[in-house]
Order: sequence, then structure tokens, then C-alpha cells
Amino acid sequence: MQRRRKLGRGVAIVGAGMSKFGMFKDKDSRDLFVEAYNEMLSSVDKGVDPRDIDALYLGNFTNDFFMHQGHWGPIISDLIGLAPKPATRTEGACASSALSFREGIFAIASGFYDMVLVAGVEEMSKCTTEEVTEGLSLALDEAYEGKVGFTFPGVFAATATAYMEKYKGATPDHLKMVSIKSHNNARFNPKAQFNASVRDIMNSRVERAKKKGQPVPTWRDEMDFLHDLSVNPMVAWPLQVFDCCPISDGGSCMLLVAEEIAKNFTNNPIYVIGIGQGSGRALHTKDDLTYFEATRYAAKEAYESSGLTPKDIQFSEVHDCFSIAEVIHTEDLGFFKPGEGYKAVEEGLTRLDGPMPINTSGGLKCKGHPVGATGLAQLYEVWQQLRGEAGERRVPKKDLRIGAAHNLGGTGGTCSFNILERR
Amino acid sequence: MQRRRKLGRGVAIVGAGMSKFGMFKDKDSRDLFVEAYNEMLSSVDKGVDPRDIDALYLGNFTNDFFMHQGHWGPIISDLIGLAPKPATRTEGACASSALSFREGIFAIASGFYDMVLVAGVEEMSKCTTEEVTEGLSLALDEAYEGKVGFTFPGVFAATATAYMEKYKGATPDHLKMVSIKSHNNARFNPKAQFNASVRDIMNSRVERAKKKGQPVPTWRDEMDFLHDLSVNPMVAWPLQVFDCCPISDGGSCMLLVAEEIAKNFTNNPIYVIGIGQGSGRALHTKDDLTYFEATRYAAKEAYESSGLTPKDIQFSEVHDCFSIAEVIHTEDLGFFKPGEGYKAVEEGLTRLDGPMPINTSGGLKCKGHPVGATGLAQLYEVWQQLRGEAGERRVPKKDLRIGAAHNLGGTGGTCSFNILERR
Repeated sequence: MQRRRKLGRGVAIVGAGMSKFGMFKDKDSRDLFVEAYNEMLSSVDKGVDPRDIDALYLGNFTNDFFMHQGHWGPIISDLIGLAPKPATRTEGACASSALSFREGIFAIASGFYDMVLVAGVEEMSKCTTEEVTEGLSLALDEAYEGKVGFTFPGVFAATATAYMEKYKGATPDHLKMVSIKSHNNARFNPKAQFNASVRDIMNSRVERAKKKGQPVPTWRDEMDFLHDLSVNPMVAWPLQVFDCCPISDGGSCMLLVAEEIAKNFTNNPIYVIGIGQGSGRALHTKDDLTYFEATRYAAKEAYESSGLTPKDIQFSEVHDCFSIAEVIHTEDLGFFKPGEGYKAVEEGLTRLDGPMPINTSGGLKCKGHPVGATGLAQLYEVWQQLRGEAGERRVPKKDLRIGAAHNLGGTGGTCSFNILERR
Repeated sequence: MQRRRKLGRGVAIVGAGMSKFGMFKDKDSRDLFVEAYNEMLSSVDKGVDPRDIDALYLGNFTNDFFMHQGHWGPIISDLIGLAPKPATRTEGACASSALSFREGIFAIASGFYDMVLVAGVEEMSKCTTEEVTEGLSLALDEAYEGKVGFTFPGVFAATATAYMEKYKGATPDHLKMVSIKSHNNARFNPKAQFNASVRDIMNSRVERAKKKGQPVPTWRDEMDFLHDLSVNPMVAWPLQVFDCCPISDGGSCMLLVAEEIAKNFTNNPIYVIGIGQGSGRALHTKDDLTYFEATRYAAKEAYESSGLTPKDIQFSEVHDCFSIAEVIHTEDLGFFKPGEGYKAVEEGLTRLDGPMPINTSGGLKCKGHPVGATGLAQLYEVWQQLRGEAGERRVPKKDLRIGAAHNLGGTGGTCSFNILERR
């Protein structure tokens, strides 16, 4: 019935940048954006005149609440001298900048513009953990989820419990394997908030104890280390600290142009070949917590618009706000069958050198999760991988050509899934 | 140098709805949206199956702050059974839903979608005036405007002062003439928050005094009435209460489709023929407060994309958050020369029966200004006028064919200007 959804005009990425992610008391949203923007400009190897940028889309989620500042579009457009050209903020909770990416694509594909800057920024670490928890709860449905007491760790703990109840083989150890795998990747990501493996962290604790003359811990391996509640406290059963992404500050951006002019800016553009977005219903309407309908819909749209299937995706960034989210989303995206995501982790299929590398950047868990900047930071990782610029964390496949990025907002309210290609 | 910006695929409006605007303690954002949505559905005279809607864009500005609820896209998509289809929130302060309108247009013009719902909603009256003032200040640039103590009445009072300083003939009475004219139009708008003329209001005060046996006021005319500080108190010189839009709740929406299928839904679609958006810099960078660069840029884009000039626009809704804003914007949009907007009001050119009717709906001043709903509510007025459905406030021109709507966010940070046509 439904005609195949496709763009009337192709869109390519010709530049990308990302600030270092972390907790920076001395940087505000403007600083974080500029750090990403300057890298983006220098990544356009044939050069670009910023005066040719037609418009800006900016993803931001919580600055109204945390910083008493909404209306970020014109602030950033003013900052980089883009004004009086248009600047639009998109907000889809933790998927805010993936939505900016999409609107930038539509604006070019519509024929109206040729070059659009898309960006995301978020500044969170100046707030207390309690304030962050309250601010992020703006992404919940206040009437149906917030008022019954849910916070995000609680929602994803319930999700993990439901998953383990449905798929009896799945255990909290599988969630820890996700974290160990992601930390192994983040070790090679200099911009990650935690660029160390779990073994590195474990060893540093041993060294510290030795230096201080304290009793030296005798953890057998990473899993043993993560079982130790004194180093990995419980947050909401079965989620421990290492199952949860941190509070982060960061900025990210990309320069999009019409496909036909992409080679004017770089010999190595990355093409947008599939776009997908979905929305999800509040938790009280769900019959089953072990899948995300928004992700499934976004995946369907992206696969249909690209003409690809999950088998064609060679690696992907997947929204791992909590370890369980990565497991479930790899199923919803069709990389693994329902109930087999946890086995894939156990078998090492999602490792950097596995057949389906997931979160080569370290994911939200290790790279950090400045919520409004995350969507484009995921796409930045795919861009770096496809351009062969991911350094030691490069996916070791012979013909790396197609990668994807999946971004979630709220308890599943918004999902974006986009597929990129190197030609 | 710049190629002419135009859409690769035409877009038409086939349905529109607007809730009554006002202060409704018993209605929340969901209720206000549904009121607009139901009217929109019934306005599609050949019928539409809501299951054919491909996506939603929703404008909202302050609900994060006022209602502790962000991430409105999926909430509304859930409410009307659109989920799991995509839903995106746009935020550009008081221009939030005009941005949704634009993104809906791009999504269709890109070829990706055929039918998109665009909407706006805002719920403000449950807050105190102090809370509303603080919430709306999220639209200011906090670093450069907020921290020096500006609020919106202050910004526009400074704007009015600068205008009267530059154009010596302009006086506070000209601002009152804007309000008198808008109230005359709002008298015929049953959905307006204040659907009464200033004379009606004046007469009702006289009647009330008589009934209560109080001394009967002896105002000579509307202007005399508005000079009386006991009924029209000073807010920020030269702006009095009747120069300021009220605090309002409301919802608005439109159904957009690809031009080639518009006649499947109605014999009387309204076509989008020009779109424009601009952004503006913070006040401290301005050399002159008497124009809005965002408006001028948006106008340039809309005229260029439509191939029209200001002379072709037969009537327009213009963002009159304060009376001075309407005067200046009618200049920035090219309807009158700089410094002649106030004369146009004095000469009655902007009256309903004048050559260039402005704010036939009553404008923000009288219709109300639920900020996130305003942009689409302005377009709703243009839709009603062009379809001949504006009742007693119909613009009395022989061949009413082209109207426009202008929406501003912040101190001039975001501007949207769109031109519609009946064919």
C-alpha cells in the first residue's frame, strides 16, 4: 500500500566535529559547540566558506531547565555569525540532535537549501545528580510515568527484569559484558569521558591500594571486579553503576550538503542512504517491555528508504543509556533475533573484531551522554569509521562501507536510526 | 550569486483547526490540542483517514518550565494514535509552531512524506504572572539580555522609545490606535480571548458603574479611555496594558499534503507559495532597535521563494506581542517604508477595510498568545480568510487570493514569514 519513502534529492556529510565529552565545570554550551564546530570546519579538507551555510538546526534537551535558557537556535547562529539566516531547535529528549540531523536532511532534500549545519549541545555537569535526575525526567510522560515515581534507572531496571524474565538465559552478567566490551572500545577513543577498559580501571584500583598501603584487592577478572558492590554499587536492580551512562557535557556537529556538490568540499564525503524515525507510547500502554516500538518503526523506515536489510549494516552505534538498552535495541534493529541479543554479547559478536561491532566509540556508557549532543556524536563515530579515521578502534573489516547510528529519547518516546555509506 | 530558493515539490494545506484561546484552568495541553485537531479533521471536507498521516511536528515553548514536561512530540502522537510514526518538537520561543509548519513543509517537499500534521500548543494560565514572566524569559539570551534585567515588556518598551526617538511624529497614541484597530477585528472572532472592541469594553465599564451606583466615567472616545491609567495601567513606558498581549492557553494545527494530492481532500486547498525564516542577534549587538533583522531576512526569503513582492500580499497576520512590534514589522515586511508604519495605522491603512489589513483575527493582543500555538493560529486565520470562512471579519476585497503570516520568537531571535495562496 505505502509507497516507498525516499528523498527526492541526495544528501551527503562533508564535515563533522565533536568536542571532548566529560564533565567540564569551566565550559558552557557555547564553548562546547565551538569546540565541535572548529573541528568540523577543519575536517572539510577542500575548505568551506561558512558564509555559504544556509541554515542551522540545533538539538538541545535540558538547557531550559538546567541553565534557564531556551531558544538556543539564534544564540548559536549569532555566535558563529550565521545570523540572520534561520536557526531551529529540535527537541526529542536524548534524541534531540538526531532530529536536527533529520531536519537538515529534509531542508536540503526539499531543494530549498544546499548546505545546512546540524548540531547538538548539552551542559549537565554543573547540576547535582538530583537535579539531573529531575531535569531528565522531563523526557518521561509526566502524567503517566513521572507521577507514579519512575526515573530513568527505574524504567530501564524494569526493562532488564522483564527481559530476563522472558528470556531465561539472560542474566545481569550479560549486561556487564556489554559494559566490558564498550570500555574496551573506549580505551581507543581519546574524546571519551572514560577512555579506559574495565581491566585498566581494575588495575588502577589495585595500584592505588598498593600505593596507599591499603589491603590489595584480589579481583580475578573484570567480571569479578564488576560484581564487587564496593566499586560497582547497585543503582536499581539489576543495574549497577557500570550499567549506566554518566552525566556529561559535550557538543557535536555536522555539515550537510546536497549530494551533487559534495565533492566540492571533500574527496571523501559520507552519504546519507537511509533515514528513519519513530515514536513510542508511554509505558502504561505497553504489553511487553522487552522491545521498543519506536526503534522498530525507525528501523523499518531506514531500511525501506535505503533498500537495505540489517545484514547490510557492517557496524552500528546503538543507544546504550543503560546496558540493557543496547541488548534490546540490537534485536529491534534486526541485528539479532528477539531474545538473542544477550547471547550475541556473550559470544563476542558485538566486539570491535566481531561480525557486528556495536558502539565502537565506547557508546554512551563510556564516551559520555550529553543528551542533546549524543545523536550527532553517534553519527560522528560512523563518519570517522567510514572515512578510516577511527585510529586504533577502526572496525577491522576489509571493505568498510556501511554503518548506522541509533538514538533513543525518553522511555522510548522518540527513536532515530540513520544509515550512512562511503562510496 | 545565490540561486533562487524554492521547494522541489509543492505543499498545500487541506485542513486546519484552532482551539478557543483564553485562560482555561480546566484544560491542559492535551485538551487544547484535541480541540484544534478535531476541528482540523472536520474541516477536511472530502474526509481524511488519520492513519494516512505520516508524521507530526509540534511547536511548544514553555511546557518544560511551566508543566515539568518536555518531549511533547510522542505525547501527542500517542494521544491521537499516530505512534509509532515520528513526532518532532520544534522550539523557537514564541515562533515554535511556525517552525513546525516549516519542517512539515520540508518533510513533504523532500519527497519522503505525503501527509504531515503540524501543530502547536501552550498552557500558561495555571502560572502566576511572575512565573510566566520568568518562563518567557527563557527566550531571551540569558547571558547578554536576561542578566542585565530585561523582560519582554522592557525590551519592547525600549524598542518603542527608540522608534519614537527616530521617527519624531510617532507617539504612544499611535500604539493605542493599533490596539483599537485589532480589537475592532477581534469583535468578530468568536475564538479570540477578548472578542470585544475597545468601545465595547469602554461601554461595559460605563454600564457597570451605572449598575453599581458608582460615579459614571465620562470618556469621550476610545483614545480617551485608553489614556485613563486606572483602566489602562502603565506596564513599561510607553506601553500600557492595552499595548500588551495577554497570557493565554491554546492549541492550533494544520494538515499538510503534497500539492498533487491536495484535491483528494478538499476542493479548496490553500497552497504554500513562499516560506521564509530568519534569526536575529542579541540586543547588545544591535546598532538600531527600530527594525528586526530576522524579520527582514525571513521576508526576503519568502518573497524570493514565491517570486512575489510586498505589494502582492493582500493582508497579513503580524506578530504583535506588543503594539510597537506590529508597527515595526509592517515596515520590515515591506508593507510600509521604514518610519511610515505608524502613519499607516493613523491613516487606517491596516484596518479590516483598508488597503492592507493587518491582524484581521485581532492579533496576539486580542486573539491571545499561547506562545507555542501562535504561529499556526496566525496561519489558521489566513486559511480562513482565503477560504472565505472568516465570517464578519472577512477582508472585503474582491479577489482575495494571497495572504501571509509573520511570527516572531524572543527579542527577535527567530522569525518566520509564510505566504499562502488560494487558486
